[in-house]
Amino acid sequence: MYHQKLLLTAAAVWLATSPQAAVANNQLAYQLVEELTVEIGPRLAGSPEDAKAVAWATNKFKLLGYDKVWTEEFKTPFWQRGQARLQITSPFPQSLVLTALGGSVGTDAGGIEGSVVMFNSLDELMLAKPEQVQGKIVFINKAMQKDKMGSQYGSVVGARSKGAVEAARLGAKALLIRSVGTSSNRFAHTGKMSYEEGVAKIPAAAISVPDAIQLSKILNRAPEAKINLTMQTQTEDAVSHNVIAEITGSERPDEIVLISAHLDSWDQGTGALDDGAGVGVVMATGALLKKAGQPKRTVRVVLYGNEEGGLVGARAYAAKHASELNKHILASESDFGAGKIWQFETKFGPESLASAAQIQQQLAPLGIKLGGNKAYGGPDVSVLAALGVPVVSLEQDGTDYFDYHHTPNDTLDKINPADLEQNLKAWLLMTRAVADSSTDFRK
Amino acid sequence: MYHQKLLLTAAAVWLATSPQAAVANNQLAYQLVEELTVEIGPRLAGSPEDAKAVAWATNKFKLLGYDKVWTEEFKTPFWQRGQARLQITSPFPQSLVLTALGGSVGTDAGGIEGSVVMFNSLDELMLAKPEQVQGKIVFINKAMQKDKMGSQYGSVVGARSKGAVEAARLGAKALLIRSVGTSSNRFAHTGKMSYEEGVAKIPAAAISVPDAIQLSKILNRAPEAKINLTMQTQTEDAVSHNVIAEITGSERPDEIVLISAHLDSWDQGTGALDDGAGVGVVMATGALLKKAGQPKRTVRVVLYGNEEGGLVGARAYAAKHASELNKHILASESDFGAGKIWQFETKFGPESLASAAQIQQQLAPLGIKLGGNKAYGGPDVSVLAALGVPVVSLEQDGTDYFDYHHTPNDTLDKINPADLEQNLKAWLLMTRAVADSSTDFRK
Repeated sequence: MYHQKLLLTAAAVWLATSPQAAVANNQLAYQLVEELTVEIGPRLAGSPEDAKAVAWATNKFKLLGYDKVWTEEFKTPFWQRGQARLQITSPFPQSLVLTALGGSVGTDAGGIEGSVVMFNSLDELMLAKPEQVQGKIVFINKAMQKDKMGSQYGSVVGARSKGAVEAARLGAKALLIRSVGTSSNRFAHTGKMSYEEGVAKIPAAAISVPDAIQLSKILNRAPEAKINLTMQTQTEDAVSHNVIAEITGSERPDEIVLISAHLDSWDQGTGALDDGAGVGVVMATGALLKKAGQPKRTVRVVLYGNEEGGLVGARAYAAKHASELNKHILASESDFGAGKIWQFETKFGPESLASAAQIQQQLAPLGIKLGGNKAYGGPDVSVLAALGVPVVSLEQDGTDYFDYHHTPNDTLDKINPADLEQNLKAWLLMTRAVADSSTDFRK
Repeated sequence: MYHQKLLLTAAAVWLATSPQAAVANNQLAYQLVEELTVEIGPRLAGSPEDAKAVAWATNKFKLLGYDKVWTEEFKTPFWQRGQARLQITSPFPQSLVLTALGGSVGTDAGGIEGSVVMFNSLDELMLAKPEQVQGKIVFINKAMQKDKMGSQYGSVVGARSKGAVEAARLGAKALLIRSVGTSSNRFAHTGKMSYEEGVAKIPAAAISVPDAIQLSKILNRAPEAKINLTMQTQTEDAVSHNVIAEITGSERPDEIVLISAHLDSWDQGTGALDDGAGVGVVMATGALLKKAGQPKRTVRVVLYGNEEGGLVGARAYAAKHASELNKHILASESDFGAGKIWQFETKFGPESLASAAQIQQQLAPLGIKLGGNKAYGGPDVSVLAALGVPVVSLEQDGTDYFDYHHTPNDTLDKINPADLEQNLKAWLLMTRAVADSSTDFRK
């Protein structure tokens, strides 16, 4: 109902009226991401560093005073990048900067040698005839422009995720893509790619934006140019873990408010923006929430494992908790870097829209407006959303996110501590309001 | 004398009054740097690509209609970077991004393992006691701020050029420096380092700015941290060439106006800013000058070899031309990227100052002011300046230059064609004015 009220606790009122004072240790989120990225660094799912991150998070949750802390194991491939090398062999010999796409097969030691056929997009490739592509190396050269929402990512990332399958269908020997990213720095952006049953598995790699420009200029001058691609990827069976911690609800402990981030990272950077920042924010949120007074509902913090490899931990969580998904009142994830939050976005039924407006009023002093009720929630919680769990998003300014995302340049120095502090305040206010609310967001 | 006049030819008057129209092909400089960087790419002195660049430049000068074109061979070391790897071995195992400094010796296959002693500057290292440094790896962590003139470079670069000698004097096993650069991108900046007779030669490398921050955070948490540095550099004897081309003076052919750039580049990028841009500008200047009418004095364009390895080509030029240095009326070099020119700087005796002012008046429509008569001329021509040849500088805005300089990120896309066009116009006007002048700048 529109007039249904949020039952705010005294603590929540205090948080709402004084967001500045709300954060007892306003640098806690930054301290956590600093510790994670400096002491562990890159933590590719299934790697020894991933296991260290799981142990670190488990221990840290306990030190932070969470009421319950546990891990949930799942099986996962441990894919390793190895060395990759792209050489123009003729007529203008030179090396280009590239990196394997996550999950790609490698080449044999001599590499794959061939000529290149360039397309401006995945769509253009899919319209090609086999005789254009057969026996060649496909190069998809689609640029990505920046905006606050990172809204072009969806239309460009298809070349990365599906390009190898589409190229292989037409008989290509390998796939190269222009990095899915918005900076002109000479970093190749990695990211997950996929194969399809029954279609040949060909090696897939990304070259940096300057190298994509260079390769297109080389091909314009010498369409017959030959290249050699050598990649040493390998995959083995491994396990990883979701790390879960709770602040038990004082009044309705069996109602779960799930806030989350993902603990794994790509191996090229230290995973500060993706997603150390989110890890710091949600770990700090639960800890500071408890200090300000036990919430009425249970606040469950989930640090998902292997998001980057394709939401592996998120699917394991959904499977394991299938029977209690109806206890999940709400789910959200912080996984879009460390930019300021500018919008609170929900995906509620009509009965909960008044609560959305009330929560946003608390967030307004932080410069956060209300969205159009079409939240996505975040990559890992999208799995829960598909199973009927309501989701909200605290949407961050992602203008620069795809400059750094999935590159060696994703490092701690790219986080502005003041922006991360704003994130923490917003998560504290939002989580408190939801956890102390009597609104049933599932309706 | 103050009232001495520049004798402007009709062509020079036209150039001066109509700089926009002065450039028949105003994209020529860009086309040249594009061709050099796309078709040859990196061209480290002594490498096969360096030899290709020499052949390219020789041929291109002829195609551009220069009156004389020749090369002058000199001996040079051909230093090769090989692989380099820096691993934190304990307590926080992870890899950092580094690159060997130019000229450095390598390590054996197992690398050098040890603890690290950090200093904030070369000066601080030089005040250290041997017992602080003995048997350790020295890390000099001095940051560089940006400005238009790149004026901090001089005070920071000492760690790169002299750090290994000073560290070795105190018994260090290796030297690491924070990259001499102004960006927070995760690129390690290379550059020349030197050894000294009688002091142990230790390996020297640079880590990127984010990695310097990371290493300092690691050392703050764990001063006993151990690292392993592995580098596979090697050096062999080779030759390279200065490439020289002239537009013969119509009235005083034995008076030489020398304009220059350097043809070699570091191996990490494609040498677009350092110094493909300069190569394009000075090659185009001579060619377009001739099209607009033969200059009265001879304009000699010198593309120096192996500037990066320590002005090797510049010294060879000075030695070979020792007997005709007195015919060099003026020398200048374009070697500070592709930013707009904002100042005309001279180093003239009092009799030539009026000419300086007159030349600057021609440049004023391009937004170029007159400097304080303390020109440096450029790295290669500083060798000539030391031998008494007058030098001038067309000073460029270098605010972003040290973001890219000596990194993989020095690529063509970093050049703004409009800025390079402004450079070409300024060089055309300045060179025309000097070549047609009767002022003897040597006085």
